[in-house]
Amino acid sequence: MPSYRAPIRDQRFVLNDVLNIQQYSNLPGFSDASADIVDAILEEGGKFCENVLYPLNKVGDHEGCRLQPDGEVVVPNGFKEAYDQLTEGGWTALSADPEYGGQGLPHYLNLAFNEMVTATNMAFGMYPGLTGGAAQALHVGGSDEQKQLYLPKMISGEWSGTMNLTEPHCGTDLGMLRTKAVPNGDGTYKISGQKIWISAGEHPMSQNIIHLVLARVEGAPAGVKGISLFVVPKFIPDENGNPGKRNGVKCGGLEEKMGIHGNATCVMNYDEATGWLVGEENKGLRIMFVMMNEARLGVGLQGLALAETAYQYSLAFAKDRIQGRSLTGPKNPDGPADPIIVHPDVRRMLMDQKVFVEAGRAFTLWTALQGDLEHKAADEETRTKSGDYMALLTPIVKAYLTDKGYDSVSKGLQIHGGSGFTREWGIEQLLRDARITLIYEGTNGVQALDLVGRKLAMNGMRPINTFFAEMDAFVADNKGNKELEPFLDGLAATKAKLQKATNWLVEKGLENFDNAGAASTDYLHLFGLTCFAWMWGRMAKVSLEKIAEGSDDPIYASKLATGHYFLQRWLPDADAHLAKVEAGADTMMALTAEQF
Amino acid sequence: MPSYRAPIRDQRFVLNDVLNIQQYSNLPGFSDASADIVDAILEEGGKFCENVLYPLNKVGDHEGCRLQPDGEVVVPNGFKEAYDQLTEGGWTALSADPEYGGQGLPHYLNLAFNEMVTATNMAFGMYPGLTGGAAQALHVGGSDEQKQLYLPKMISGEWSGTMNLTEPHCGTDLGMLRTKAVPNGDGTYKISGQKIWISAGEHPMSQNIIHLVLARVEGAPAGVKGISLFVVPKFIPDENGNPGKRNGVKCGGLEEKMGIHGNATCVMNYDEATGWLVGEENKGLRIMFVMMNEARLGVGLQGLALAETAYQYSLAFAKDRIQGRSLTGPKNPDGPADPIIVHPDVRRMLMDQKVFVEAGRAFTLWTALQGDLEHKAADEETRTKSGDYMALLTPIVKAYLTDKGYDSVSKGLQIHGGSGFTREWGIEQLLRDARITLIYEGTNGVQALDLVGRKLAMNGMRPINTFFAEMDAFVADNKGNKELEPFLDGLAATKAKLQKATNWLVEKGLENFDNAGAASTDYLHLFGLTCFAWMWGRMAKVSLEKIAEGSDDPIYASKLATGHYFLQRWLPDADAHLAKVEAGADTMMALTAEQF
Repeated sequence: MPSYRAPIRDQRFVLNDVLNIQQYSNLPGFSDASADIVDAILEEGGKFCENVLYPLNKVGDHEGCRLQPDGEVVVPNGFKEAYDQLTEGGWTALSADPEYGGQGLPHYLNLAFNEMVTATNMAFGMYPGLTGGAAQALHVGGSDEQKQLYLPKMISGEWSGTMNLTEPHCGTDLGMLRTKAVPNGDGTYKISGQKIWISAGEHPMSQNIIHLVLARVEGAPAGVKGISLFVVPKFIPDENGNPGKRNGVKCGGLEEKMGIHGNATCVMNYDEATGWLVGEENKGLRIMFVMMNEARLGVGLQGLALAETAYQYSLAFAKDRIQGRSLTGPKNPDGPADPIIVHPDVRRMLMDQKVFVEAGRAFTLWTALQGDLEHKAADEETRTKSGDYMALLTPIVKAYLTDKGYDSVSKGLQIHGGSGFTREWGIEQLLRDARITLIYEGTNGVQALDLVGRKLAMNGMRPINTFFAEMDAFVADNKGNKELEPFLDGLAATKAKLQKATNWLVEKGLENFDNAGAASTDYLHLFGLTCFAWMWGRMAKVSLEKIAEGSDDPIYASKLATGHYFLQRWLPDADAHLAKVEAGADTMMALTAEQF
Repeated sequence: MPSYRAPIRDQRFVLNDVLNIQQYSNLPGFSDASADIVDAILEEGGKFCENVLYPLNKVGDHEGCRLQPDGEVVVPNGFKEAYDQLTEGGWTALSADPEYGGQGLPHYLNLAFNEMVTATNMAFGMYPGLTGGAAQALHVGGSDEQKQLYLPKMISGEWSGTMNLTEPHCGTDLGMLRTKAVPNGDGTYKISGQKIWISAGEHPMSQNIIHLVLARVEGAPAGVKGISLFVVPKFIPDENGNPGKRNGVKCGGLEEKMGIHGNATCVMNYDEATGWLVGEENKGLRIMFVMMNEARLGVGLQGLALAETAYQYSLAFAKDRIQGRSLTGPKNPDGPADPIIVHPDVRRMLMDQKVFVEAGRAFTLWTALQGDLEHKAADEETRTKSGDYMALLTPIVKAYLTDKGYDSVSKGLQIHGGSGFTREWGIEQLLRDARITLIYEGTNGVQALDLVGRKLAMNGMRPINTFFAEMDAFVADNKGNKELEPFLDGLAATKAKLQKATNWLVEKGLENFDNAGAASTDYLHLFGLTCFAWMWGRMAKVSLEKIAEGSDDPIYASKLATGHYFLQRWLPDADAHLAKVEAGADTMMALTAEQF
């Protein structure tokens, strides 16, 4: 049975060396996050994940969830106790608003912790995982009363949250949703309808479940302009704010799924359940998108987290399994064979995994820092820039990290050979769990369309132009740094291709919208590759500096070698993506539906 | 619940139009395969797969196999009856040697049938699937007595066959195998040891199971030079050739796997089982490779077959599921939304699937034809050439078709959105089943090493040079065909890159063997892409001819459109593969094992 070690050394490398987070220590919340405190929290969090969540991962996969005749859901053995430990340890409150009981620590710290939660037990992590986003939506869109009532208990984890969008006939296309809301005359509404694929929709782990539900008020306009957001608690809070009367919402079924068996994916039936409007009527989608964006970043993180676990599994396997001899002569001459890590093609897969998890970690932590700066930076310019980045890069975090993360897990399985296909080794579970990340919270195709259809053009293309300027500045600022040159050249060349693709999109996408759709996924991947080239440039730069300063920590040489591998083995894909972008929609759309 | 339709129209297109198989009707066995007979067999076989095997696919996945305390294995409900129908229908004897009761029909016909078997029920197909290869090995390496005893019953399917190579400590590296054989003095041997991952190792579907087992005769040289092949029947045939005394071989456990649950993957314990030597002592590996090569081609076919089923599922879903509107205006204005096939990114995935299954089908049928010509062609030149192709292309069929086939199934799942992740829609089973094809019968990395390490240099590089000459001839012979030009240019350019990569390999691979290993997988993919470019060139050519002849069959226009999509959207990957080949081993191997 393989094991998992919290990647704290690498997280510290990103936070301290690459992002130099101590430079922000004058910002609210950041001042509490001294290097010592960050370290202590990561260490403590890592232990919790290694010791409590990790042993339950296989249990959750094997046992799954069961629906009882009364609509209650039984979760895997040990999940409830682990959830109690999570909330008692204050882990759900890490970066939440202190006004409602949160610890107000930076988001990047919360993200670093969540990476480890997901890596050790993704299905478990989804129970508390959606609560943060739901609380965030209430924080942004709820009334003071709603905030006072719900936020403290959601932040503490006593109550959990869910997101109810999908219905049987509508997922991506929310304009078709039918769940209806009828005013009761007292400010509340009767909510009726069916929602499907509701993660953590019903379970006994928290004392109350706070459903955020999209519904249509009677007589509202058709389409997305008539959608309102409601808060529908499982138990209606009594006058003291404690769980009271059972509300008219019930789990009507659990999905049988390919993976994440430990999480209850529910059909939720609303039968005149009492709901409270969040924000204004017909303006619910905007608030739900606060939650949706949080969730998308969380899904991107899942791509990274499962890839990290897979990398640890396959690395251990590659060092341990002996089979065949190195092509360049025995490396383990006293044994009957060499460990398979000597074989170049095994090494190729390991290096691809290493490239991904290290760049992915830097990228997600950098993104989380932007989330902090968007709200907490002292100057408006920084706040605007970070906000722009968050909007622009959310689809890339979600889709690129899950496409590549899934691919990375699959490579990890491949290294295991036949063992990888058996349940015993655990990695096939990771692959099954990871497969959903390309789908939920908006399929990766929907992310690509969001990127080319909305995010590019935002604010007169300000975000993308800011991004390009930042790449250019990094290259210009480091000009003359001989050892960094391959990284600067690689970044500049890839960014130039992205810019070319962007120009093509602006011109040809307006000519024929299908061109934008046809280009979208390759464009997103070219964008992700550019982000990774930037991350590897930054990681290489700081590693060179540390070595020049005399550090003999082996991590820096390892980063440089991995970065060079990235330049040689990942960047060649940029041309292929550009060629596919520029291929346009014509051949893609040439056939009629009947001709297929 | 989706359905499956036998792709007979497309098989006919390849056989009749592209390969023009009637030109071979003067060859032994081929004369029986008139166009009418081929059609009738495909139609009948397609019905059997659609009606008998397909309904059992989900059953097999859900029920799996169970080991009884006595070592017998219970297979899913209906499997035994389906197997009886298969053998009673004569399907296992299709292309087998008439001397032993086979029908002597061409291999391509058997392959076309097997595609449908695998597409409708891969786990079932593996029970009879390995028998053919085992019979082939006995045919090549067995004594007359062994052939008389085993072949008729294996060809009829009364008895089935297995392949026993892997042991717990050795899979790829057979030199380490420990199963031992002790001569009994009467020409038989006592076989003792443990074999694992034996597909269809134990089951009640056939009356006897004929295990082909690699073992080491006492005192044999170490390593691969001391490996012998034995035939070890579950029941020792009596003097009448009927199953007699139970032999000392027993199933000791079943693997819990990610997929192919309907197939029994067995731990086989040999405890002084009686075995008969096949061929000579210490020369068993060569004969086993006859079986292994058959199995590798079969696995490549699995990649195609599952991709075809996935394509049918996702195409039906994309036409049926309505969600959102076309970017260029409503296509289903009377409905609440358009079918998702209107969205370019969905179309992208469908076209990628279509490109793959159609080129993959042409490629596998062409390969099967080479297998026929290798043995049956009238002139030695053709026999030599076909034999060369079989040797050269087996690793490409196995690895390229499974890498791309798995990717194709995954795209099919993605088109389903959230439904794809649920068991209900069946496509997640295809993905789980498909994942093993990248691993067994030699991982795809092992295939790549076989290609660059053995197949390239074979016979003074005769096979690869013949292949290059054939590509050049196709381009030259069709020069001036204006409409075909993009296909000729695409093939010529891709072939030129493959040739460049080949030259690099020859030079740098000899300088440092790790360079060959580091390049191997990208080289194999570049090779596969070249094969596909050739197939699309041939398919486009014949489609243009048919249209010029006045055919209004819509398949020809569809082929041309799909081929153009291939040129635009697949060929750009060639440069990336070449760049990765030329990157060499240095950065890949830069880190020590400890630095990971």
